[in-house]
Amino acid sequence: MALIVQKYGGSSVADAERINSVARRIARAKDKGDRVVVVVSAMGDTTDELIELAYQVSEHPSDRELDVLLSTGEIVSSTLLAMALKSMGYEAISLTGAQAGIRTDATYSRARILKVESKRVVRELEKGKIVIVAGFQGITEEMDITTLGRGGSDTTAVALAASLGAEVCQIYTDVDGVYTADPRLIPQARQLPEIGYEEMLEMASYGAGVVHPRAVELGELFNTPILVASSFTDSPGTLIHGGVSMEVRNKVRSIAHDLDVAKITVVGVPDRPGIAATIFESLAKAGISIDTIVQNASIENITDLTFTVAKSQLSRAMEVVEPIAISIGARECVSDSRLGKVSIIGTGMQNTPGYAARMFSALSEKGINIQLITTSEIRITCIIDEARVKDAVLVLYRAFELEEEE
Amino acid sequence: MALIVQKYGGSSVADAERINSVARRIARAKDKGDRVVVVVSAMGDTTDELIELAYQVSEHPSDRELDVLLSTGEIVSSTLLAMALKSMGYEAISLTGAQAGIRTDATYSRARILKVESKRVVRELEKGKIVIVAGFQGITEEMDITTLGRGGSDTTAVALAASLGAEVCQIYTDVDGVYTADPRLIPQARQLPEIGYEEMLEMASYGAGVVHPRAVELGELFNTPILVASSFTDSPGTLIHGGVSMEVRNKVRSIAHDLDVAKITVVGVPDRPGIAATIFESLAKAGISIDTIVQNASIENITDLTFTVAKSQLSRAMEVVEPIAISIGARECVSDSRLGKVSIIGTGMQNTPGYAARMFSALSEKGINIQLITTSEIRITCIIDEARVKDAVLVLYRAFELEEEE
Repeated sequence: MALIVQKYGGSSVADAERINSVARRIARAKDKGDRVVVVVSAMGDTTDELIELAYQVSEHPSDRELDVLLSTGEIVSSTLLAMALKSMGYEAISLTGAQAGIRTDATYSRARILKVESKRVVRELEKGKIVIVAGFQGITEEMDITTLGRGGSDTTAVALAASLGAEVCQIYTDVDGVYTADPRLIPQARQLPEIGYEEMLEMASYGAGVVHPRAVELGELFNTPILVASSFTDSPGTLIHGGVSMEVRNKVRSIAHDLDVAKITVVGVPDRPGIAATIFESLAKAGISIDTIVQNASIENITDLTFTVAKSQLSRAMEVVEPIAISIGARECVSDSRLGKVSIIGTGMQNTPGYAARMFSALSEKGINIQLITTSEIRITCIIDEARVKDAVLVLYRAFELEEEE
Repeated sequence: MALIVQKYGGSSVADAERINSVARRIARAKDKGDRVVVVVSAMGDTTDELIELAYQVSEHPSDRELDVLLSTGEIVSSTLLAMALKSMGYEAISLTGAQAGIRTDATYSRARILKVESKRVVRELEKGKIVIVAGFQGITEEMDITTLGRGGSDTTAVALAASLGAEVCQIYTDVDGVYTADPRLIPQARQLPEIGYEEMLEMASYGAGVVHPRAVELGELFNTPILVASSFTDSPGTLIHGGVSMEVRNKVRSIAHDLDVAKITVVGVPDRPGIAATIFESLAKAGISIDTIVQNASIENITDLTFTVAKSQLSRAMEVVEPIAISIGARECVSDSRLGKVSIIGTGMQNTPGYAARMFSALSEKGINIQLITTSEIRITCIIDEARVKDAVLVLYRAFELEEEE
């Protein structure tokens, strides 16, 4: 009798019909004899609707209040799912984040989970119940309600799986699993049956948004296997775990891409210690997430500092950076919001020469200009014109022979 | 520096505009130097919408889950109100029923408040904050969320006022206060500046639905004055308190009426001990609230038992009662759903002869047939044809000279 944690995203519980279909899926797991904990997101667009309500009453809604408001979305879906299961004859109970013991710090809107006090969950499981936990939320030591920010429900699910020692955390979403490339761009892309945490992390951070990197990190930390699968089909999905062979023949396992990239370059920065810190601390305070950072080698103590942000944060980031650029004596700030990125991802690439060269030459043969390059142990990313991203994915897919079965 | 508790109903917070207008009203109280605790209901039709959602996923939604679901309605409005106040520059914080320490028993859907652990509320008040509490909800010892049933938010407000020793509990609603009769029927009806708890209780139970009887009872128990006033106007409202003179000249202070009355008569009941208990225990188990019960003196050990229920519960009640009637050897069950009731209410009526006679003759002069009569110390109620209720209110209003100023 295994213990499994399942997580269903907002589109899987968007209306009564889908809630009933998710309930049937949960019931099947229960029928197999497993003990089942389920984490749910808010129904469909609920969270956006609540945010809109907040902005109707206040131009700058209080973080604390917004968190309490948003937490109701997941509470609603968790109770409806429990009702649906009960009306099918299954014992089920919904728990809020607070009741499920998801204890967080007090960083409203992006709280971090400190620990999971799973006593109540365990007690309900022992009674034979299916436990439905409202995702995305927790509670502080002061009993204030928090939300976990982006990827929150995935993180709740993996945290619960880790603390309960679950056999697997199953993340059900609107895609089938992890593919060798985005199937919308590459129709012949193949679904990967398994992938390592590190590879998945690189893919998640680099545009393959099936599961949030925070959740994958947590899974890696506690060695909790994560299955990503569709809640609409019976495809087997992709298992993210630590036991994936590090020496697969074809080192490049997938191509990731992202169209939400904007770039800011601070030109002519005096190369003194502390300059980068000044800029990035101010951006962090303004709540702007930085993605790639590239600083070129300096020539005559003058360098250029380039970084990328999400397109929606570009104008805000420019407002923060421009006065700093002036104050530190940089020449100017330039930005470009029409960018995208494409990455090749696979284990062991660093130890195998030639991958970078093969990537760059494949792109250049197609006349695709590379604006920035960054690499990690298992990833090479190029930032290019957004209009060429689709071509780039296609040419790389061929160049690294991903059509072939492994 | 007084401490006051204000309560706003669902229609007062139905949209962003009204929430802002309620926030301005709260701000005015705060500006006067008072410490303010506010209890809110769910916005407009939210509760009905949530119930509809529940019935979309389940024919018989679980009580426990329904309570958690419904509790989100008041949480949403409390956070929005706190946001609105903060954006006006006032320090405010929302608290769920659980956070505000509203501890209840575990009778889902109609939990009773056991105690109020007001530590957190007091702490926030001491910080100078306006405290906004989600009404209608509480939490059990097991940390399960409950709702208080009908009149729940009024009850939350009075319970908080009592436990905090507030100077007054102000219930803001969509009516101006308590009238000598329903102003929709009697345009010349006058607003009462004050009224005693007992009189208000009789009026509330007998159709003048401005404040729920549970809340009035609680106010009486803790001697907490309750002001009923409109959230849309600046009318002074009606103060419900214990200090009202018991010897006002005109003993009849108001006429109440109710159009939601259905009657069931069990005809030819053998008059043995335990028969009434059998019937009413079964009705209670089926969750049917009984209003008036009348049993005539028995003739040859055979009696008729009549009781009234809300019209919506008539068919359910008949389903429960008919098999019992057969099993106890009664002749038949008859029902009538087209009834209403009209009551005269005032202190000291029992000690002043002639009120009942005056009421009955006023009705008979208008040709209004009385089907049932019940009385209390401060009330006489007649159940009549629903089509004649308006006439009855009018004729009684004149007969008891309520047009005149006291």
